[in-house]
Amino acid sequence: MLTLYDFMGSGNGYKVRLLLAQLGVPYRLVECDILKGETRTPEFLKKNANGRIPTLQLENGTHLAESDAILWYLAEGTPFAPADRLQRAQTLQWMFFEQYSHEPNIAVARFWRHFLTKLSPLQELDLPERMAKGYAALGVMEQHLARHPFFVGERYGLADIALYGYTHVAGEGGFNLDAYPHTNAWLARVASQPGHVTMDHKS
Amino acid sequence: MLTLYDFMGSGNGYKVRLLLAQLGVPYRLVECDILKGETRTPEFLKKNANGRIPTLQLENGTHLAESDAILWYLAEGTPFAPADRLQRAQTLQWMFFEQYSHEPNIAVARFWRHFLTKLSPLQELDLPERMAKGYAALGVMEQHLARHPFFVGERYGLADIALYGYTHVAGEGGFNLDAYPHTNAWLARVASQPGHVTMDHKS
Repeated sequence: MLTLYDFMGSGNGYKVRLLLAQLGVPYRLVECDILKGETRTPEFLKKNANGRIPTLQLENGTHLAESDAILWYLAEGTPFAPADRLQRAQTLQWMFFEQYSHEPNIAVARFWRHFLTKLSPLQELDLPERMAKGYAALGVMEQHLARHPFFVGERYGLADIALYGYTHVAGEGGFNLDAYPHTNAWLARVASQPGHVTMDHKS
Repeated sequence: MLTLYDFMGSGNGYKVRLLLAQLGVPYRLVECDILKGETRTPEFLKKNANGRIPTLQLENGTHLAESDAILWYLAEGTPFAPADRLQRAQTLQWMFFEQYSHEPNIAVARFWRHFLTKLSPLQELDLPERMAKGYAALGVMEQHLARHPFFVGERYGLADIALYGYTHVAGEGGFNLDAYPHTNAWLARVASQPGHVTMDHKS
């Protein structure tokens, strides 16, 4: 059986839990409290030298890290991953956009505001730039969703799961989505997909 | 023919130019000076709403963004991308590691130190943390390379190209690689691959 090392407050972890639920794949969940440094212990670093959740242990004992690489592994050959070469690349385009332009701003602002009791001087100074870049990423999404119901191939798939993870909790980072109607409509479409589960879902 | 929009100083762009050279695929190069905002013009934003190079225009006119998604598109079905499912996921694991834990620290520190004449107060305050996180990423690579000649499947491929892009110019960001012998040996192995070109290579 698969074992997923995860933290329930993580949107990156939630992406994996959401896909596993929609695939109907059973797994064992091991919760790691990142606020207590539980992914930086010598034991955990043997599983993932980069010290992060989610980390997925496969049935042969191999550990796979990086949420979007885990999603790709799980989805290959299923309807959640496109069969077309260009659509596969477009899926990865949105997943890399998510990890480079979206998550470091929206998820990090949410982490600072939602999970920390006090920001460091660097975080205080950095927060306005993270907010501006987060809104810019939301703007790129809004522009795309004005013309398409989903991110790739006009159907629900991996790119939607990857971007839903932190977009649906952007409010916890202080982002106001009122001016993003197409994004709000997409959030509702994703939440209405068969087998959808919420962020607090455990296997 | 493919058209690549690129900036010659970009490691992200170089990754794509390196793979295109090794694949022997001809392309038209259009240089965009990111220091002059040439990727944020209304015309460029029609090609890539996120306003970044590299952006690849395919023969059918579609534009593909995100360096590692472009690499994936170009490499599918070639020896540079693994055929094995787990190795494909491990390749993506290292590519997402590169874009999340490596590039935002090593490439950003390099950009600030190598291309800007003066840092902002936020950049000045942020630089030590970027350096620390950059060295941490180099440490994760070093640990892996102590046991493996390349990142995935014991052979040269996409993950190596993705990580080589900015690791080989980390010195321009102020990173000293003397304490990373396995990484230095890997840099030399990558540079000795058939068809290797340097960062200033144009099509």
